[in-house]
Amino acid sequence: MRCKLCGRPAYIKLHYPRMYLCEEHFVEYFERKVQRTIEKYKLLRKGEKILVAVSGGKDSAVTAYVLNKLGYDMECLHINLGIGEYSEKSEAYARKQCAIIGAPLHIVRVKELLGYGIGEVKTRRPPCSYCGLTKRYIMNKFAYDNGFDAIATGHNLDDEASFLLNNILHWNTEYLAKGGPLLPGEGKFVKKVKPLYELTEREVVAYALAVGLEYIVEECPHARGATTLDMKAMLNEMEEKRPGTKMNFVKGYLRKRHLFELREKVELKECKVCGMPAQGEVCSFCRFWGLEKPLDFRVRRG
Amino acid sequence: MRCKLCGRPAYIKLHYPRMYLCEEHFVEYFERKVQRTIEKYKLLRKGEKILVAVSGGKDSAVTAYVLNKLGYDMECLHINLGIGEYSEKSEAYARKQCAIIGAPLHIVRVKELLGYGIGEVKTRRPPCSYCGLTKRYIMNKFAYDNGFDAIATGHNLDDEASFLLNNILHWNTEYLAKGGPLLPGEGKFVKKVKPLYELTEREVVAYALAVGLEYIVEECPHARGATTLDMKAMLNEMEEKRPGTKMNFVKGYLRKRHLFELREKVELKECKVCGMPAQGEVCSFCRFWGLEKPLDFRVRRG
Ligand SMILES: [Zn+2]
Ligand SMILES: [Zn+2]
Ligand SMILES: [Zn+2]
Ligand SMILES: [Zn+2]
Repeated sequence: MRCKLCGRPAYIKLHYPRMYLCEEHFVEYFERKVQRTIEKYKLLRKGEKILVAVSGGKDSAVTAYVLNKLGYDMECLHINLGIGEYSEKSEAYARKQCAIIGAPLHIVRVKELLGYGIGEVKTRRPPCSYCGLTKRYIMNKFAYDNGFDAIATGHNLDDEASFLLNNILHWNTEYLAKGGPLLPGEGKFVKKVKPLYELTEREVVAYALAVGLEYIVEECPHARGATTLDMKAMLNEMEEKRPGTKMNFVKGYLRKRHLFELREKVELKECKVCGMPAQGEVCSFCRFWGLEKPLDFRVRRG
Repeated sequence: MRCKLCGRPAYIKLHYPRMYLCEEHFVEYFERKVQRTIEKYKLLRKGEKILVAVSGGKDSAVTAYVLNKLGYDMECLHINLGIGEYSEKSEAYARKQCAIIGAPLHIVRVKELLGYGIGEVKTRRPPCSYCGLTKRYIMNKFAYDNGFDAIATGHNLDDEASFLLNNILHWNTEYLAKGGPLLPGEGKFVKKVKPLYELTEREVVAYALAVGLEYIVEECPHARGATTLDMKAMLNEMEEKRPGTKMNFVKGYLRKRHLFELREKVELKECKVCGMPAQGEVCSFCRFWGLEKPLDFRVRRG
């Protein structure tokens, strides 16, 4: 088949909207879609300082690559989770990606910083649970300490749709208040955005390949990913029968999200240890890691 | 395999809870579960006059059969939709079922009553849409006119789970306020209950077979059932991987249903034609069928 726009041999067949595109026009299409997503949901303004959390995987690498290409002022942060070889490999990919992009890369290593890697802490909490807590905290504190206006993550359409479906099947309606492409900043919480919100996993993979970004393919050894994979498979099955299912599902959610928003806001205090927002006296990060003084991520600028 | 309770050869393997039962113990299990559903959700009290809507299909036949066996005061209503041979067959099955049950059967024929069968009306509305409207109205008016305290329908767990999943995937949150085993009566709306709410389609089929109820298997020729079937297939796939998925999905919904309830109640007027509840001057049933005087379903009692 041939590109709809120029007649050259097709690089990819898009399902929704259905069309064939050559490599060049696909890359253009993809980048324009990111730009439009940013504008449509008012995610970022030119001139804002953006921190992209690069994990070594495809989604965050593509996010960083495209934001840079679109002319946003961005730097990258890689959090090395201290999960043995998996983390070493992830860091190596993140370094390679940022070198290609030409973006400054900051690296925070959990094990150096806190004494233990993810999975090494003696706790009854499953690793994925405190890993999420730890990543979220470090990302936010790093961005806050260094004056970033926004944190961009690599979540794509498939991630969002499967997140929503899973939380709906389990009626975790608390989580359903927290979806969407934009989590506005508030107090010491830095704004979080998802520029790949309307792009499918398949498109992200095709883009990475087209622009020559390599990335880690292995799953984290702690991942309990079975549920997410099930959900993604189910959604893809439905998508095949009815193209547009995922997009319509996610857009419908955005129209109805208000139903899940808590009517009363939880008042947050300041953590006695680190000064960041906390529900109790000490924030869940400082409590979990048993910190007695705050982490300081301020980077000396040369 | 053998019955968990008596060691005789098993008639069925239940998936959730997982156990083998002989025919006799399965029938007992099934009926006890209906009774417990009725009590748990406060659907019916002994002494209430119940109208069971029997379509000729398995679910409503089993509902009527079990309610009668459990000693409830019940009569049946069959609505002949006037869809050619399909409706003739359905009516014949309903008659046979009620004869077995030994329950009084009332029959309302749409075509005799209103001049056209479902599918014969010149309208842009799809048949399933005005069929639903028509059945709901006749069921309710018949029950109201004849002093019934409740209408029992045959909805089973699979129906409810697929209804919920479909409306969630499309974010039809208005409909999500209307699920559940009990729709309380209000004004001229007669209470509606679903005694098979916690029983799966598979269990209903096995019960019908065990007690010798025959039923129509064909789908209505107008059915756009593809979506419902897709949803049921998907849910069954998930159920196989994680037994209990459907039940937990439905129970989770019941805990969160309040999120979907409208904060402001729509004030209903009385239909100028029939006196039943209406959103405008004339109710949607009288408007659709162009009625000028009310239908009267009062039955002469001998
Ligand atoms: Zn082209
Ligand atoms: Zn803290
Ligand atoms: Zn037995
Ligand atoms: Zn009316």
